[in-house]
Amino acid sequence: MNEAYSAPLPLRSVRVTDDFWGREMELIRSAVIPYQWEALNDRIPGAAKSWWTHNMRAAARAVAAKKAGKIYTPVDRTGDIARQPQDEARPHPDAFYGWVFQDSDGYKWLEAVAYQLSLRPDEALKAQAQQAVDMICAAQEEDGYLDTYYTLNGRENAFTYLKDHHELYCFGHLTEAAVAWKQATGQDDLLNAARRFAACIARRFGPKGERGCPGHEIAEMALMRLYEETGEEEWRDLSRFFLDVRGTDPSTFALEENRRRQVQGQPPLPVTADRYSYYQAHRPVRQMKEAVGHAVRQMYLCSGMADEARLMDDPEMKAACERLWHSTAQEKMYVTGGVGGTHVGEAFSRPYDLPADTAYSETCAAIGLAFFARRMLQLEPRAEYAEVMERALYNTVLSGMALDGKSFFYVNPLEVDPAACESDERLRHVKPIRQKWFGCACCPPNIARIVSSLGQYIATQNRDTLYIHLLIGSEIDAVLNGAPLKLRLDVDMGAGKASLTVAEGSAQGAIALREPSWMRFNGYQLCGGISVRSSQGYSIFTKAWQPGDSIEWAFTMPVQALAASPLVKEAMDQVCFVRGPFVYCAEEKDNGKGLHLLRVRPEAAKEAAVTEADLGGVSLPILTLPGKRVKAAANAPLYAPWQPPQEEDAAITLVPYFAWNNRGMGEMRVWLPVEQR
Amino acid sequence: MNEAYSAPLPLRSVRVTDDFWGREMELIRSAVIPYQWEALNDRIPGAAKSWWTHNMRAAARAVAAKKAGKIYTPVDRTGDIARQPQDEARPHPDAFYGWVFQDSDGYKWLEAVAYQLSLRPDEALKAQAQQAVDMICAAQEEDGYLDTYYTLNGRENAFTYLKDHHELYCFGHLTEAAVAWKQATGQDDLLNAARRFAACIARRFGPKGERGCPGHEIAEMALMRLYEETGEEEWRDLSRFFLDVRGTDPSTFALEENRRRQVQGQPPLPVTADRYSYYQAHRPVRQMKEAVGHAVRQMYLCSGMADEARLMDDPEMKAACERLWHSTAQEKMYVTGGVGGTHVGEAFSRPYDLPADTAYSETCAAIGLAFFARRMLQLEPRAEYAEVMERALYNTVLSGMALDGKSFFYVNPLEVDPAACESDERLRHVKPIRQKWFGCACCPPNIARIVSSLGQYIATQNRDTLYIHLLIGSEIDAVLNGAPLKLRLDVDMGAGKASLTVAEGSAQGAIALREPSWMRFNGYQLCGGISVRSSQGYSIFTKAWQPGDSIEWAFTMPVQALAASPLVKEAMDQVCFVRGPFVYCAEEKDNGKGLHLLRVRPEAAKEAAVTEADLGGVSLPILTLPGKRVKAAANAPLYAPWQPPQEEDAAITLVPYFAWNNRGMGEMRVWLPVEQR
Repeated sequence: MNEAYSAPLPLRSVRVTDDFWGREMELIRSAVIPYQWEALNDRIPGAAKSWWTHNMRAAARAVAAKKAGKIYTPVDRTGDIARQPQDEARPHPDAFYGWVFQDSDGYKWLEAVAYQLSLRPDEALKAQAQQAVDMICAAQEEDGYLDTYYTLNGRENAFTYLKDHHELYCFGHLTEAAVAWKQATGQDDLLNAARRFAACIARRFGPKGERGCPGHEIAEMALMRLYEETGEEEWRDLSRFFLDVRGTDPSTFALEENRRRQVQGQPPLPVTADRYSYYQAHRPVRQMKEAVGHAVRQMYLCSGMADEARLMDDPEMKAACERLWHSTAQEKMYVTGGVGGTHVGEAFSRPYDLPADTAYSETCAAIGLAFFARRMLQLEPRAEYAEVMERALYNTVLSGMALDGKSFFYVNPLEVDPAACESDERLRHVKPIRQKWFGCACCPPNIARIVSSLGQYIATQNRDTLYIHLLIGSEIDAVLNGAPLKLRLDVDMGAGKASLTVAEGSAQGAIALREPSWMRFNGYQLCGGISVRSSQGYSIFTKAWQPGDSIEWAFTMPVQALAASPLVKEAMDQVCFVRGPFVYCAEEKDNGKGLHLLRVRPEAAKEAAVTEADLGGVSLPILTLPGKRVKAAANAPLYAPWQPPQEEDAAITLVPYFAWNNRGMGEMRVWLPVEQR
Repeated sequence: MNEAYSAPLPLRSVRVTDDFWGREMELIRSAVIPYQWEALNDRIPGAAKSWWTHNMRAAARAVAAKKAGKIYTPVDRTGDIARQPQDEARPHPDAFYGWVFQDSDGYKWLEAVAYQLSLRPDEALKAQAQQAVDMICAAQEEDGYLDTYYTLNGRENAFTYLKDHHELYCFGHLTEAAVAWKQATGQDDLLNAARRFAACIARRFGPKGERGCPGHEIAEMALMRLYEETGEEEWRDLSRFFLDVRGTDPSTFALEENRRRQVQGQPPLPVTADRYSYYQAHRPVRQMKEAVGHAVRQMYLCSGMADEARLMDDPEMKAACERLWHSTAQEKMYVTGGVGGTHVGEAFSRPYDLPADTAYSETCAAIGLAFFARRMLQLEPRAEYAEVMERALYNTVLSGMALDGKSFFYVNPLEVDPAACESDERLRHVKPIRQKWFGCACCPPNIARIVSSLGQYIATQNRDTLYIHLLIGSEIDAVLNGAPLKLRLDVDMGAGKASLTVAEGSAQGAIALREPSWMRFNGYQLCGGISVRSSQGYSIFTKAWQPGDSIEWAFTMPVQALAASPLVKEAMDQVCFVRGPFVYCAEEKDNGKGLHLLRVRPEAAKEAAVTEADLGGVSLPILTLPGKRVKAAANAPLYAPWQPPQEEDAAITLVPYFAWNNRGMGEMRVWLPVEQR
């Protein structure tokens, strides 16, 4: 492997000590994970049912029956991909309920639990997780197949409709959980289940088997991770197969569709790939230039591609990743680090089409963007990747969860008017208030797993360099040129002070610190003997490190007014305010109704006061800055000759975007119009 | 009847001499009407089929068979409301095709023809129309029923689903055509068909029959017109019945639905009216406050309500009309006189929700708004009504048709980007280029009938006053206090001169001339003996008029920059330019791609040059004014700290909105952002 590439440290080697993220991680541990276990068990009154334990137990009984030589007859074979019982209180014990990909909910929960257990032993939690692991293992069929939907609905149809049935997606999440569980506990139980399922898949698909690839990507990166964990090259090769068969003619999705159409007596469709852009299967991945289709899928695909570029040192794949990165981050990303401009297909829209109010910007897509960015950083440490990763994590990912960890956004628009959401079918996808749980509950456990594994995003290392991508207080056990080095990173955003100190160990090598564009440095104070150079937004400090060595710096975090490229029609003549990694927004609670009537001077950023305020149980920095409010007379004519707008002074209060909607329902707006002459 | 109320003059009493409208009316006569006859006969290659003559002939055979005592068996009874033959080249001769309301296409065409025949005899055209009339009469059943859909699909279900099957809608259009045909030709053939169908309806519904009302309004105003033409009060009473049963509990629409559900074995729905706002049947019409639901239907309902308010001198109904007018014109109308802010239900959106790019603004809805406005003027001559009527006629109504009369817009947005329309499902309803014909072809013949009957919008009169609402050159045969008075209205917009002259006759009375807000008067020059007063935007000249008497005035038509109320988020910090009754827009053809990058000073209106240009076969006044264009660097970052926008000077060219898209496909934009500091 290319020695320049880096990898995350083992999770227990990066212990977050940061106040802000410490609270979030503790919230996941103490509130979200227990809450989600209740959700998986369908014990939350008023929340949409998960059916996860129901399906697992039903599948386990079916598997046991088959193993006992009994003939298993599915309750029904209708093949609905989102089924609910007629009477929710009396589900059929042997029927599959929920979405076709429902298994993945529990896998994601388990992955989050594993990360938490890596960081801090917790016997009770481990016992709960073991229950889940045992349930999963019991639901695995003798040949390794593991998908409760098909086990309960008729195994004979398994693997026949990869396009829309999520077996390979569920497999991917299972594998991610299994590797995390192994790393947390040392146990092989779930890892073996994942390998057996992987082997079952590899017997069907691959260079020597059928052509085929996942409709919803994730298996690609999961297989690469399984390879990295086990060293078994067959998983890497299967991942490459899935990547390279994708988007080639004849499209395997078209062939699948045509088999179904034949059964239904319908004429076949053309077998060219080009109509499968929703699935990123419209052309070979190495030729892709534009991020398209379902945003989560595109981000997961990019993550798998970047893994392959790194693990195979494949420059063609790396170039494709860089093109897709550019398309995503420079043409199709919200300022909040969200992606997915349209609810139609939960998808990327055209370049620069980033509407604020109808945005999709799914929480999971921002999580996927962080996955992709981390992998690009592994390929090449460029501050651009880290800044986007940070923007996604601090804003859209966290916006997906309430400050108390008990309700969630799936969709994260940049402008919300609850009155509009209520009546307007064009905004049906936008919820003006976080929901307890979703029938399609991809986002809540996805937040749990990424926040719990934050350490994997803070730093990566290769043989001689430790890269620190996110300035988040933590203790880091690095290994430089084979020698262990315990470091302590302290960041006090409030006081504007930070330091990196060697706590233990001696090693020769480089520590590369990202220089965030939002931080105004007042210079580094270095211990003796350090050589310094700068590269792609990182300051690289090289030394034979000794205990007590330190890098210290003071900084300010000025409030900045950001503008979008003029090509972004929807942010035309508007600015948003940011401070540090946080994007700010205006809420009705502070600024009254009619937020579109506010006007700001970009220069007012300099006059912004930063204070702390309780935003719903948590005290956070808020901004107050002078602005205007356009007066809207009640009986003004709808159209009239233009006159200079009638404005009054207004003190505008802005709160961190991620923390909006924690004080009741109301309007919210990120982009604020610039005052006219 | 209240003597203050006014009525339009007979159509042949208002002969349009105006260049601009003369061209439009001639276009209808020479191009649109012949083209539409071809369309009704399905003889336009590449255009969606109408099936009108096909259905009429098939129904006539069915009726003849029944009259001959044969048992008629429908080809099928599937009840599809939009059916196409499997093989378009070989339709079944006895099957109904097209939409359930397809009959109305021909009725609208016939109405337009009748207006044209009123203005100018044309034997060939009359013969063609007579063919259509004969076809219609032949398709009428023995009991007066006349709807080819049910005649061909099974008469036993007639009148059982007024909510979504358009028998009463087709009846309304038949009746409008019949009255126009009678007035044009003196013939009773079609009028008798309409009366027989009306009688058939009245035997089923009404004070002594079943409760019920039209799902798509128009019968209300058509019945009032039939009453005005014939003096037969039963039609007025049936119209009032339809109006007053509407929106009352139990909802007749709910009862209809429940009868259908019962047949299908589904449980009944609640029978309250409140969920029928799409149909304006959610509450009694006298209690309505807000224009809601399908915009064309709402406008047609309002027109019927205003007719009833006038013909019954009903102040409660008039008050309801005024509330709905306010909601429409002061909260929900585009600056182009279009209505319908959302494609979901082709409907009114919330107050002030007037998006430019996703607008529906259906051509027919603007026509309906003109109907409503004319009727409000009959109730009370207020310039506000006339200005809105004029805005609709000169802009959205005419935008519906190409300058050559051969292609049509159904939807009239205020901002179009063809690249977006092509790929974005959220814009599926927006066509970036006019279409030859529509499967649901309500708009093209509706344009033909309103433009052909323009005289009915120019002036109305009561016993002692002639109101001139639209300053359109014409010869008017008025009757003041019983004495005929021939007037000539000349308006030369280019030269800024206008006059009203008595050509023949002597009469005592008042002539009320609207004072358009877009005209800057330089004073009236009056012949002797005139007394003048002003009321609600009209100058009222009273005299014992003699031949040669005249009112003359000079004026200018300054270019104005209009702004929307600050409550219209979508037009925030933007202006549009208007001159006279015309709203202007920018086209890509003149201004290049990226119209959202243009910036204007509202004051630049004063500097605008007015010149003539060929906009696609027709020379029209265009505007050129100084502005800016924001530079959008190709590789600019997506987000960056705000900087004053980089702008370059740009000469901005604007064309009349109605004439856009006559020089090929390209971007278009009405609202232009105001330059920042």
